[in-house]
Amino acid sequence: MKSDFIGEFDLIQRMTRAAGTFSDDLLAGIGDDCAVVSGGEKSDLLLTADLLVEKVHFDRRWFSPEQIGSKALRVSLSDIAAMGGVPEFALVSLAVPTPLDHKVAETIYQGILEAADEFEVTIAGGDLSRTEGEIVLDVMLLGKVEKGRAILRSGAKPGDRIFVSGTLGDAALGLLALESELPGPDTDSLVRRQRLPDPLIALGQALGRGRWASAMIDVSDGLSSDLGHICKASRVGARVRMKDLPVSEASTRVKDRFSIDKESVLLHGGEDYELLFTVPSGLVARFLQETFPAPLTEIGKILPASEGLMVELPDGACKELRAGGYNHFRHSP
Amino acid sequence: MKSDFIGEFDLIQRMTRAAGTFSDDLLAGIGDDCAVVSGGEKSDLLLTADLLVEKVHFDRRWFSPEQIGSKALRVSLSDIAAMGGVPEFALVSLAVPTPLDHKVAETIYQGILEAADEFEVTIAGGDLSRTEGEIVLDVMLLGKVEKGRAILRSGAKPGDRIFVSGTLGDAALGLLALESELPGPDTDSLVRRQRLPDPLIALGQALGRGRWASAMIDVSDGLSSDLGHICKASRVGARVRMKDLPVSEASTRVKDRFSIDKESVLLHGGEDYELLFTVPSGLVARFLQETFPAPLTEIGKILPASEGLMVELPDGACKELRAGGYNHFRHSP
Repeated sequence: MKSDFIGEFDLIQRMTRAAGTFSDDLLAGIGDDCAVVSGGEKSDLLLTADLLVEKVHFDRRWFSPEQIGSKALRVSLSDIAAMGGVPEFALVSLAVPTPLDHKVAETIYQGILEAADEFEVTIAGGDLSRTEGEIVLDVMLLGKVEKGRAILRSGAKPGDRIFVSGTLGDAALGLLALESELPGPDTDSLVRRQRLPDPLIALGQALGRGRWASAMIDVSDGLSSDLGHICKASRVGARVRMKDLPVSEASTRVKDRFSIDKESVLLHGGEDYELLFTVPSGLVARFLQETFPAPLTEIGKILPASEGLMVELPDGACKELRAGGYNHFRHSP
Repeated sequence: MKSDFIGEFDLIQRMTRAAGTFSDDLLAGIGDDCAVVSGGEKSDLLLTADLLVEKVHFDRRWFSPEQIGSKALRVSLSDIAAMGGVPEFALVSLAVPTPLDHKVAETIYQGILEAADEFEVTIAGGDLSRTEGEIVLDVMLLGKVEKGRAILRSGAKPGDRIFVSGTLGDAALGLLALESELPGPDTDSLVRRQRLPDPLIALGQALGRGRWASAMIDVSDGLSSDLGHICKASRVGARVRMKDLPVSEASTRVKDRFSIDKESVLLHGGEDYELLFTVPSGLVARFLQETFPAPLTEIGKILPASEGLMVELPDGACKELRAGGYNHFRHSP
């Protein structure tokens, strides 16, 4: 869950470049879903922080305090999933507006605890403060991954095939349904995906254990942005096929009720927290015979950097795929 | 730097009790300066998070963006010092109000980077967001300590002697000088202690390496609160001698210019980030012959829990020492 505010990526990257590295243990730093740190002979450690700010990342009209807490932890867990790791410990920092006080803080924690129980994460600490501003929740996770097996964004090679789990665009449509107050059986599953994303930890681990994925990221900002991150980190290009992008039945049923560009929802809708990854072409035949804990769809191919990032439209024409072409889907208001 | 908002300590403790522990690696959880996690055969890992919120923990009238960033990291580093550990990695999450934007975020980061360089901490990641509220900065640290050598709050025994490093009350007077606009050579050093506290990492390590300290905490909330934390965690009482509390020359010179109770500043003034620790009586003679990287003062004695937490006044009378008797010093506005 990255903010597009003032080019977060660039600012944080510039900061790291300026920062000293005082430890040989840092194996991968800022610019991936987690930092990777050597954790002894058997395993590496994964570190990630996700900040959720009221009115930027969630709106209290559509999120209960419990859902805010649960979503915050789930979003961070997705970063661990995207490295092929297992979450272990969480630190939770929470600032709550003074007029809201105790009860709201406690209910947010209840949401965090429920998600921690579900995904077997141990809450190891945190901090709590009042604020005169908005609710701010920062979740930091410490996870583990088998030594040398963390799946980075930077490992994709031309020829690799691009896969994505589950379906795309559902969380964005869920937000749209909340904003336009379109409840009903069709939108319920989409709203659930917006409110309580499922971090795909078991899938991430299976992809890491089998050494199937050469690069991986979770779809937090939207396919166009997140595939862009893989391409930038791996110094490659890519082409995805519009007709192959996986769509849920609920989203198919519901999409006509909104006056939106259906393609944009699929290409740019964020917060699905599916895993987007690449598989070397030589492994694909065997890979397709394996069973994984989530449905997977092949959606395109990695190309040399000179080819850029393209989408093949249903009529066979190709156009450049620019990150975040449909900003509305990137974040709630 | 803990907020006294709605009983943070209680709420976080209740939350941990409710939370599941899914890892045998958690050696000490919420309720100490850091969580302690097993990190293999040679060392344990230390985890801590500190949240700084504008208008609660700092006021931008008296803190430049650079000082905010530097102080945030220093305060977290003090938690590592209080365990006898070495800091290694930091994650920094920052929410900046929209009208302030880019430049402020970057300057806050510059302050963080300067402190990271000084204390040889590697910035491993973080998150950045805009907010419609106040500046919020959350710093999480991962540190290391020799296996089994983390100094907890819970190890004090009746008979142990109580020591504190440096001088007390300076940071609280520094804040008072800022608030009442009393600049000058006398207040400069006090203001510096309020703005840029020095985490006593080398001292913490020396106390851990020699196994001198049976319990330790950093003075963030004030002597009365923080000694109270040691007593509660160790299930003991304590008596400190007012006449032995270490006072800086600058604070002696300046105190008469404020209409405040001098004893309260010493007993309850927070944010000095000195180390407060206990030494078993059998070790004291040898301990006093050692050299340490900060001046140390013996200020009292650990007693059985039934004796409570007391302060011996200069006239020899004893009174109960209640936490935070002078709230003004606990936080800026």
